[in-house]
Amino acid sequence: MDLHILDHKLRVTSISKTGLEQYTHPLIKLIFLRNRTRCKFFSLTETPENYTVVLDEEGFKELQPSEHLQVEGSTWLPLNVVSNGNASSSSQAVGVTKIAKSVIAPLAEQHVREKDLSVVVETLVEEFNIFREEGGESVPVHIPHATVHPVLIPENQFCVMSLDPDTLPAIATTLIDVLFYSNSPKEGANADQDMECIKFFSFSLIDGYVSLVMDTEAQRQFPADLLFTSSSGELWRMVRIGGQPLGFDECGIVAQISQPLADSDISAYYISTFSFDHALVPEEDIVSVTEMLQSQRKDISS
Amino acid sequence: MDLHILDHKLRVTSISKTGLEQYTHPLIKLIFLRNRTRCKFFSLTETPENYTVVLDEEGFKELQPSEHLQVEGSTWLPLNVVSNGNASSSSQAVGVTKIAKSVIAPLAEQHVREKDLSVVVETLVEEFNIFREEGGESVPVHIPHATVHPVLIPENQFCVMSLDPDTLPAIATTLIDVLFYSNSPKEGANADQDMECIKFFSFSLIDGYVSLVMDTEAQRQFPADLLFTSSSGELWRMVRIGGQPLGFDECGIVAQISQPLADSDISAYYISTFSFDHALVPEEDIVSVTEMLQSQRKDISS
Repeated sequence: MDLHILDHKLRVTSISKTGLEQYTHPLIKLIFLRNRTRCKFFSLTETPENYTVVLDEEGFKELQPSEHLQVEGSTWLPLNVVSNGNASSSSQAVGVTKIAKSVIAPLAEQHVREKDLSVVVETLVEEFNIFREEGGESVPVHIPHATVHPVLIPENQFCVMSLDPDTLPAIATTLIDVLFYSNSPKEGANADQDMECIKFFSFSLIDGYVSLVMDTEAQRQFPADLLFTSSSGELWRMVRIGGQPLGFDECGIVAQISQPLADSDISAYYISTFSFDHALVPEEDIVSVTEMLQSQRKDISS
Repeated sequence: MDLHILDHKLRVTSISKTGLEQYTHPLIKLIFLRNRTRCKFFSLTETPENYTVVLDEEGFKELQPSEHLQVEGSTWLPLNVVSNGNASSSSQAVGVTKIAKSVIAPLAEQHVREKDLSVVVETLVEEFNIFREEGGESVPVHIPHATVHPVLIPENQFCVMSLDPDTLPAIATTLIDVLFYSNSPKEGANADQDMECIKFFSFSLIDGYVSLVMDTEAQRQFPADLLFTSSSGELWRMVRIGGQPLGFDECGIVAQISQPLADSDISAYYISTFSFDHALVPEEDIVSVTEMLQSQRKDISS
């Protein structure tokens, strides 16, 4: 199994809730009109705070600067995990493979923090051959010293889904409704830290593959026959990481959550946004994940 | 046959070509998300100059003022022709009935100039019972003295189509593409007076009925099985009225074109926009219409 760091430059941006309207035109183009753009990597995630838009430089050109658009200074690299048949034979590898399958692959699609890359490399270096696409150089490894961040576990159940990109037009009006018009004043009150349910919706269109993450309430608005779940009807719960916006400098946030999950053989689907990180874990594991996170926090504070 | 002047107040607005992007959000809501708006009358027509948007006051609330939005000061009344079975028996009535079918009915959907109403009333008063919805009063009739305006007859062939509103989602991405993204710099050069083809596209959603007028080039982008033409495959040519923007004060512009057409028993579909008027006539009649218009202009200038 090889870990490729693609030579694909991504920008991480945030659009304010009130500014979304004025970005409707470029966003609809990037989501629905593939023949009008050369953007190959696009991801839009709504959280209670803002809309995180991660996209390649072709897509980034479409977003006009404004007071509503925040752009993170760095460019980011997507990872891609490619199986080459040389599976590790050690039983220890299960956890690592689990990370690769359940964390790295989603991260590759969901833009891991570049800094977190070193952590991942540290963890995986014995099991994987690691290449940077441009020259075959290995990445220097820094051992991170991460703060343990508070976590929030909202009540809603989430689905992770995919869609045949050719059927994207068939859900266009529903998707536009959910993405651009769901912030009625009533729902706006959700932007509260201690909410029971969280407003979270993620759409990504990467190299022609569509992924959607939404809660079951949003899911009911879509035609059931067009969206596919990875395994039938699997439901996920969310662990949202960070009491304060996390910023972009800190290392090891992903590993802090993903390492103990991998050790416990629990799948995770990880989505970073501009302000916070989000790990989705299977509904049936949420109790043990909660206990694990609580004991992790107790160990640190004691 | 009764002519009803509906108690429905319409606003006539124009959005500049460069300003369309910032109105994408409200326009998409008005076109596709009927459950999010109480607007019952919406019409959007693209011409080389601008986008004319005619809508009721519920819809008008959605359009934020800006330098890109021009709003005509008056409110306008839509007409509605209702057959009550009392068909006139005179053979003379054919022409008038033709107007009613081919001019008044489209006008009722397509916002006749309120001033032109008097002309229409003048023409029709002997054949129709005319009601103003609020009180049964008849409309005072002024005989108009209209300038004869230059006309332009572009080369493109047009289709007049309808659509089951429930299938609107199925053409959403195509319609969004055509309405909001067709102005590539190349096509922008079209805004020329002596063009051979004209950029013209009209969408209206009135009381749940969808009408579309587009040229055959635009039509090819839509799935053929969802759009219906009035009679199978009927093609229309356009007579565009006005060398200079017509303004909103002049009377009799509609009658100037529609009266001779009616006399010659030629159908017409009439669409007023912010700057110019447009009459669509059947392809096979364009030669005689051209001759008629030329002789009309010769008579006036001699």
